[in-house]
Amino acid sequence: MGKGGMSHGSAGEAKDGEEENMAAWLLGINTLKIQPFKLPPLGPHDVKIRVKAVGICGSDVHYLKTLRCADFIVKEPMVIGHECAGIIEEVGSEVKKLVPGDRVALEPGISCWRCNLCKEGRYNLCPEMKFFATPPVHGSLANQVVHPADLCFKLPDNVSLEEGAMCEPLSVGVHACRRANIGPETNVLVMGAGPIGLVTMLAARAFGAPRIVIVDVDDHRLSVAKELGADEIVKVSPNIQDVAEEVSQIHKAMEAGVDVSFDCAGFNKTMSTALSATRAGGKVCLVGMGHSEMTVPLTPAAAREVDVVGIFRYKNTWPLCLEFISSGKIDVKPLITHRFGFSQKEVEEAFETSAGGGNAIKVMFNL
Amino acid sequence: MGKGGMSHGSAGEAKDGEEENMAAWLLGINTLKIQPFKLPPLGPHDVKIRVKAVGICGSDVHYLKTLRCADFIVKEPMVIGHECAGIIEEVGSEVKKLVPGDRVALEPGISCWRCNLCKEGRYNLCPEMKFFATPPVHGSLANQVVHPADLCFKLPDNVSLEEGAMCEPLSVGVHACRRANIGPETNVLVMGAGPIGLVTMLAARAFGAPRIVIVDVDDHRLSVAKELGADEIVKVSPNIQDVAEEVSQIHKAMEAGVDVSFDCAGFNKTMSTALSATRAGGKVCLVGMGHSEMTVPLTPAAAREVDVVGIFRYKNTWPLCLEFISSGKIDVKPLITHRFGFSQKEVEEAFETSAGGGNAIKVMFNL
Amino acid sequence: MGKGGMSHGSAGEAKDGEEENMAAWLLGINTLKIQPFKLPPLGPHDVKIRVKAVGICGSDVHYLKTLRCADFIVKEPMVIGHECAGIIEEVGSEVKKLVPGDRVALEPGISCWRCNLCKEGRYNLCPEMKFFATPPVHGSLANQVVHPADLCFKLPDNVSLEEGAMCEPLSVGVHACRRANIGPETNVLVMGAGPIGLVTMLAARAFGAPRIVIVDVDDHRLSVAKELGADEIVKVSPNIQDVAEEVSQIHKAMEAGVDVSFDCAGFNKTMSTALSATRAGGKVCLVGMGHSEMTVPLTPAAAREVDVVGIFRYKNTWPLCLEFISSGKIDVKPLITHRFGFSQKEVEEAFETSAGGGNAIKVMFNL
Amino acid sequence: MGKGGMSHGSAGEAKDGEEENMAAWLLGINTLKIQPFKLPPLGPHDVKIRVKAVGICGSDVHYLKTLRCADFIVKEPMVIGHECAGIIEEVGSEVKKLVPGDRVALEPGISCWRCNLCKEGRYNLCPEMKFFATPPVHGSLANQVVHPADLCFKLPDNVSLEEGAMCEPLSVGVHACRRANIGPETNVLVMGAGPIGLVTMLAARAFGAPRIVIVDVDDHRLSVAKELGADEIVKVSPNIQDVAEEVSQIHKAMEAGVDVSFDCAGFNKTMSTALSATRAGGKVCLVGMGHSEMTVPLTPAAAREVDVVGIFRYKNTWPLCLEFISSGKIDVKPLITHRFGFSQKEVEEAFETSAGGGNAIKVMFNL
Repeated sequence: MGKGGMSHGSAGEAKDGEEENMAAWLLGINTLKIQPFKLPPLGPHDVKIRVKAVGICGSDVHYLKTLRCADFIVKEPMVIGHECAGIIEEVGSEVKKLVPGDRVALEPGISCWRCNLCKEGRYNLCPEMKFFATPPVHGSLANQVVHPADLCFKLPDNVSLEEGAMCEPLSVGVHACRRANIGPETNVLVMGAGPIGLVTMLAARAFGAPRIVIVDVDDHRLSVAKELGADEIVKVSPNIQDVAEEVSQIHKAMEAGVDVSFDCAGFNKTMSTALSATRAGGKVCLVGMGHSEMTVPLTPAAAREVDVVGIFRYKNTWPLCLEFISSGKIDVKPLITHRFGFSQKEVEEAFETSAGGGNAIKVMFNL
Repeated sequence: MGKGGMSHGSAGEAKDGEEENMAAWLLGINTLKIQPFKLPPLGPHDVKIRVKAVGICGSDVHYLKTLRCADFIVKEPMVIGHECAGIIEEVGSEVKKLVPGDRVALEPGISCWRCNLCKEGRYNLCPEMKFFATPPVHGSLANQVVHPADLCFKLPDNVSLEEGAMCEPLSVGVHACRRANIGPETNVLVMGAGPIGLVTMLAARAFGAPRIVIVDVDDHRLSVAKELGADEIVKVSPNIQDVAEEVSQIHKAMEAGVDVSFDCAGFNKTMSTALSATRAGGKVCLVGMGHSEMTVPLTPAAAREVDVVGIFRYKNTWPLCLEFISSGKIDVKPLITHRFGFSQKEVEEAFETSAGGGNAIKVMFNL
Repeated sequence: MGKGGMSHGSAGEAKDGEEENMAAWLLGINTLKIQPFKLPPLGPHDVKIRVKAVGICGSDVHYLKTLRCADFIVKEPMVIGHECAGIIEEVGSEVKKLVPGDRVALEPGISCWRCNLCKEGRYNLCPEMKFFATPPVHGSLANQVVHPADLCFKLPDNVSLEEGAMCEPLSVGVHACRRANIGPETNVLVMGAGPIGLVTMLAARAFGAPRIVIVDVDDHRLSVAKELGADEIVKVSPNIQDVAEEVSQIHKAMEAGVDVSFDCAGFNKTMSTALSATRAGGKVCLVGMGHSEMTVPLTPAAAREVDVVGIFRYKNTWPLCLEFISSGKIDVKPLITHRFGFSQKEVEEAFETSAGGGNAIKVMFNL
Repeated sequence: MGKGGMSHGSAGEAKDGEEENMAAWLLGINTLKIQPFKLPPLGPHDVKIRVKAVGICGSDVHYLKTLRCADFIVKEPMVIGHECAGIIEEVGSEVKKLVPGDRVALEPGISCWRCNLCKEGRYNLCPEMKFFATPPVHGSLANQVVHPADLCFKLPDNVSLEEGAMCEPLSVGVHACRRANIGPETNVLVMGAGPIGLVTMLAARAFGAPRIVIVDVDDHRLSVAKELGADEIVKVSPNIQDVAEEVSQIHKAMEAGVDVSFDCAGFNKTMSTALSATRAGGKVCLVGMGHSEMTVPLTPAAAREVDVVGIFRYKNTWPLCLEFISSGKIDVKPLITHRFGFSQKEVEEAFETSAGGGNAIKVMFNL
């Protein structure tokens, strides 16, 4: 697929003698069905990938339950899935750095490279972005997909295909850490120990954060966070009245100022806590998206020059994620709590598992 | 006064044969009285200044009306005033760059230079800051004050003492522009055309902003803003329901994306407008402090990587303010709408004028 | 031409009934000849431009005299020219922001948008760059060229086609100012008052530099620089022994510290002067390329944390150049000292004029 | 000693009944003698430290051999030494964060906090800096010294006094890494495996550098570097003609682009290698100071936007050094190769050991 190319494929059957490519189609609320998926032609800079591992993201579940996520609405049948890795099967005529057989992780978004934001290096904000499983673009929970070669990153020998697929959620944490400028002098507070809080915590550690305190309302999540490397955990209530008291607990747990807080939940309470807990001159990075409109003490934070930085997806994160995983600075394997095959029944079970609590962190398909 | 020195002076009478130094003391709510003010001894790095021009700030009025401002509370009689300029009368033994007779503008805050924030160049956030007329530190509406020489900036020949005093409010705009990184590519939206909005607009222009749209609910303020150089003005309502419509008007007036918005009012509505109007990847700088807790669409802004940066006072702004004024890039004179002498009666009238609407922008004492 | 497209055209004749496109071909040392130039097919994101104004650059002259420039060697006949503006004649099927009749300035380089440098926003460093008249890519001194639409920038009504062509040399100054972070607090030294020194000076002023001192060995160049807005000029010798004395003169002329020096000549002496004259913590930006290996006092400069930043071409500069020209912040017209038509004879005369001293700054073709 | 206080002490004897403070005085070329050293009075923000560990720096040796270093000349007898740690004996009246008995590492330089550079956070460049053992300021190889409390950093329990003294040389590496912006994506080349090269390598690793190649002419130094954690070592010649070949070897050893090169030697050859080896858009940080005037291919590097950043000492590095040591991210103990007591004879031997090759890295006094 070329620069600003077409969408990622279409419904349709294989030609005679050709193996049929199957994909998980989102056909309506709570309706996922494995059906044929016709690939687009292979452009000179594209590769065809045999997909081997696909993770389920919270947004996938959201689309399944509501046909929408943020401002995006599913109006036509759409192949779902965007966290994936696979094996190169075919390369376009101009592709030089990949050959069939290469194991690769896929960055899901194709930006236009013609707008100001792309040209200034903020391609994640491109208004023309074509992104796996963001309507109307098809996703990657399929036997095969076609994708630009420059968005396929070769896996080091010691990185598995499942770990390759984990680069996508990990990228959110990596991008957040970059935007908040985490380094070996940054004491980090993470609000929320769900999947996003955990990858952010792991990324912050890999960026050198010397001390990380993580906060949640749930004991199990906190114990997982502790096992994965949090220095201290703080159990909090859902009551907004408790912010001041909990900020004290956080400060005590940190034993130092909070330089950067990541709000990985995005609720009034978590953001209020983050804004209040962060030291003068620090940063709060808003990663989670619980509430849209927020009621928070923004002015007192601003008057201490606590800046609020947001993130949207990620950019240029795959090489670093692979370095973190390959070097052992980050171990993503414990995040993969459930595995499923790619049958109609298993697809349904997998999404139920992901949606249904039960302590699932990451649910992974092996195709 | 040395590093981390004492407060700025005390009540008391002059010695025999010495001229008595008089100052405007805040003694209670709505009670300002001119009384003797005993200066502290002149340290080796200090200078004594004959104060000639003092402006009234909104915070001065706030203290007069309520004895408090933000978290600061006036518990003891306190000399008021912090926007000032004057003439050097005496210099400490180690002062090398100033001599008696020099005309200077005074930066009002003395930081500790021992804490991390001072050492990292963010001295405005110093927790030990001693600042004119922030309790319990005395201010500068007095015949004479003692101040560290390095906080007294010599006025260029073509800059008047009144203009020197205007460096203080202008510094707020300059610091905001620096934090928001304003330059010749930054289209700027200013929410609020009060004194802070106006100095921010003037500063943004001096930093090179090619296009500035300013917004207010008041026709007179908007017409002043237009005269002072706004490219376009947009009259808005106080109703939060009008945000979407007004954002459209703002975009139309800008004829381009809004790169940076300054919220110089700090209310739910102004901040909501600023967050919504700013382009993906832009910044909102929160300057005004209308509401403390804010209900605003923070999440959608963060998801477009619109960052919120706050400001607290300023740092290292005097030389640039003087350059802007001296070079003619900024003309602060039109902001000075009222002038008063330093008698008991005039002090009272001046504060009434500043507090009382009536289209006052800056009220200035000439001592 | 698409992403990573073909070269800019080829030799060849027009089809029957089609107007023949003519271009200035560099055929050998000192041999330029107007000959037919067959355009490549118009891709979906390309436009066809009727070229109206082309400036001659020092590198063009260098290629004409030696068939090489830096590491690039002309091995095949090549159309010359890369500073140009024209009128849109035809647009590709996917072009949305331009229509035939639009007057545009052309950014000459097409980068790959697949490499790390492109993706990180430093596309000027793309190793796959295809750049007008950098072998083996054809240039733009032709009646018509085909170019990507996103590299064609619409001229404001008050900007002429010649001014549009001047965006290219001005971009060098703009990129240098961005890399050196010029703003209203930056006192600037410019070493060399040739065309590059002049555009750098004009750009520095437009970025807000309050004080600019320019240095050259030539009285005429200095007087031109003074007319174009230098605050002070300093005549220097070509002798390396005079550096210390001349640094004193420069400091005297600046009346302040030198925050940033641009070496727009690039010789041992100019760079030694720049390194020595710049204040602790300042920057030297190396723009000119006189010497390749340099003998300069680099260590004492580094020990004052004077950083040396280099530049290669430019990126994202056209919109800002057009803003500067349209707003009147920069007047490029005085730089255009000679004009020629597009005949064989005039092309030869124009290059002689550009090469031959005689106080030419910019020689411009009107086609 | 207060802000801009006096020098660090003077020659002189103790009062009756007081223990006599002894120090190592540099009296002439190759003449160090232990003599009484009278301390200055303890200012309100000062502490008196019982010195316990002092390392010898290359500059100390330089002063001993030549009475000069860079532009500084020893004209009067001067106490030597500046890398030190000790135990608090007495605190000034305003000191709140330290008490007698606290173990501390000392940052040796007292800046003025009145100049622009101090106020902007670049206090290491302060022109009024008073620095241990930089003439005419006395050093710290003494039983006791008086120093500002805010420059004394409490040692974590698991950090020894010797490790505390190592914060000084380590700070050079930390400051270099900060200026070059080292992080988990920065592949690092270190030119020179002497003490400065080693601390820079250790710091780069602690900042997250994923791959470090170190280069030297000496096999022993390289083997030490490998033991201390270099990924690859490259043995090179002292011949400038070998640069191109050696750059190839370096690239092969790196297996990737060189993002940042530290020249920790500072010779024409090392700098030429660093400039040539670094990728487009990368940085070269000049740390060593072998040659003053340098003959290097600066222009081709600048034309690839390879920037050259210099360093002078350090700022705000002690807390991070202590964190690195305490957390085990950096182990400085292997750098301490020799230890001496504080007798006349041992002082002489220690300096001979430090000066005399013999594979000494850091020579440490235990007082």
